[in-house]
Amino acid sequence: MKLKEFQAFMQEESIDLALLSNSTEKINPNFVYFIQNDHINSILILKKDPGLFVSPIELSIAKENSKIKNIQKFDKTFYEKLKELKPNTIGIDRDFVTLNQFKNLKSKFKKIKFKDISEQIKKLRLIKTEEEINLIKKACYFADILMREAVANAKIAKTELDLKKIIEKKILDLNLNPSFDPIVASSKNSKNPHHISNNTKLKGFTVIDLGVKYKNYCSDITRTVFIGKPNKKQIEIYNKVLEVQENSINNNLQPKQMHEYAQKTLGKSFNHSLGHGIGIEVHETPIISSFSTDAFKNNMVFTIEPGYYNDFGIRIEDVFMYKNNKKIQLTNSPKTLLII
Amino acid sequence: MKLKEFQAFMQEESIDLALLSNSTEKINPNFVYFIQNDHINSILILKKDPGLFVSPIELSIAKENSKIKNIQKFDKTFYEKLKELKPNTIGIDRDFVTLNQFKNLKSKFKKIKFKDISEQIKKLRLIKTEEEINLIKKACYFADILMREAVANAKIAKTELDLKKIIEKKILDLNLNPSFDPIVASSKNSKNPHHISNNTKLKGFTVIDLGVKYKNYCSDITRTVFIGKPNKKQIEIYNKVLEVQENSINNNLQPKQMHEYAQKTLGKSFNHSLGHGIGIEVHETPIISSFSTDAFKNNMVFTIEPGYYNDFGIRIEDVFMYKNNKKIQLTNSPKTLLII
Repeated sequence: MKLKEFQAFMQEESIDLALLSNSTEKINPNFVYFIQNDHINSILILKKDPGLFVSPIELSIAKENSKIKNIQKFDKTFYEKLKELKPNTIGIDRDFVTLNQFKNLKSKFKKIKFKDISEQIKKLRLIKTEEEINLIKKACYFADILMREAVANAKIAKTELDLKKIIEKKILDLNLNPSFDPIVASSKNSKNPHHISNNTKLKGFTVIDLGVKYKNYCSDITRTVFIGKPNKKQIEIYNKVLEVQENSINNNLQPKQMHEYAQKTLGKSFNHSLGHGIGIEVHETPIISSFSTDAFKNNMVFTIEPGYYNDFGIRIEDVFMYKNNKKIQLTNSPKTLLII
Repeated sequence: MKLKEFQAFMQEESIDLALLSNSTEKINPNFVYFIQNDHINSILILKKDPGLFVSPIELSIAKENSKIKNIQKFDKTFYEKLKELKPNTIGIDRDFVTLNQFKNLKSKFKKIKFKDISEQIKKLRLIKTEEEINLIKKACYFADILMREAVANAKIAKTELDLKKIIEKKILDLNLNPSFDPIVASSKNSKNPHHISNNTKLKGFTVIDLGVKYKNYCSDITRTVFIGKPNKKQIEIYNKVLEVQENSINNNLQPKQMHEYAQKTLGKSFNHSLGHGIGIEVHETPIISSFSTDAFKNNMVFTIEPGYYNDFGIRIEDVFMYKNNKKIQLTNSPKTLLII
């Protein structure tokens, strides 16, 4: 994505070349941002003419799936090739480079200055391009399909794990990958926002939280259904959570204040952030919590997900984009309490 | 695992406490090694009485799934609690801690000495305990079930992606997670060791490479079947690859020499390492390539996977453990060329 903007930043900061590495076992979202490919073990050199150095056995995969044309084998000559570029300042991603990796890098380039590039990439990623928004919209479209499928199966599936598997198999059928391990949390487990599904029978409030990636971009949606017959108090609390989401969408508050409104309204039974940015990572900036210093800007994409966790749990979550002082909802599954 | 051995190392090195962090979005295998749980966002403090600090909303998951008893909320008071322990030297994992994380840590502990613990944990993880070997054996047992299922479906499935999905759905049915994205590479794609499955029809040599995790421990197996009628040369080459694996199992060579034997016998058409250690990570020490300086020792666990990649591709891979100068095979699927 915004490669030209990043190259302009490099010029301003006198960074001659910037390095971003990726391993399929430890994916670097900043690498994926520029390359739009998380399936290769490689090092990206950002400069006027970016170059990609990949593991020799992944050369053909890289050529088939990357926008960058200058693709070479990563071998013993890599550091020599870098030295030939005679850089004075190298940009590195201090959010990803480990102490041992940096030690190795410093030993190869003894007289070089290193500058951080992680903050700048974070800034670029915070405001999505139209291309990125289109990919997120598609990820949200598929999340809606999956949520409908999940809700439709909530009666048939006997346990949390059964319903989770139905969701995961449907994701496979759509040729997609989950953006995180789907959560199905029923009965008492619903009060645990990060519950790991087990053989608990589906009963009472049942929280379903899922998302998929579409071409490296994530979606994230949560619905809560009731299996059985809810009492009056349970219906009231569900509607209160829903009202908090609706008010959060429509009020004109900044992230920190929006979270504080939800926290005040729902009280101690709401114990996590009201939302989070979403894009290449399922959790990224902007921050939407009491710690947030972010202000909404056009083309930010984020979730709003108020919850209630006490004797039982409820959560309602959707993805939104910010445009002209409005929050436009990108996931679109029904929200009135479904009693199954 | 080997917590006592690690504590003894800490005492020798005058490390007062050691920190290992984990995020569910960026799993730290060294954390998983001690905790046997990769589902929590938390910081582990290793000392005489280890403590686990977890995100408040994951407190109940951590308590249900961790061996450690001293579990507390990670909140603003975390660094104050650490300071109360008055450490002179803190152990950190230089293979995992990023430059920004270290900057933050140093700002909290200005007069403290930091020592690396990554090398020592690598040493401990290199030699598996009996408990670890039992978990890997179970992971291998399930890999065999999956390989049989995959081979049985190689006739029915029409494309690489179809067969990959059959494998992935079976993994879900077994309530397991893959240790890596399964590879199904057929026809010309088989010559690409890291091929990403697509809609290519299954035909000719078809490489199937899969593995699952059992309680955080990995398996990894590859078989190559032939769909159609192989010619004499193709059968000969398959048998040569198989012979290289058999000789590698039975000869008494060290990792580097074992790789060099395979490389020499198979020539340029063999373009990756002969094998790799396996445990919590699907690729870990010992190294089995021309760069290896490791020597086989009892309770090392690793793969042997010779391959041939030219007009078509062939790979045969199994997991082994080293015991009393012998390599004991832990995966057990048939190896004679199956013509479908």
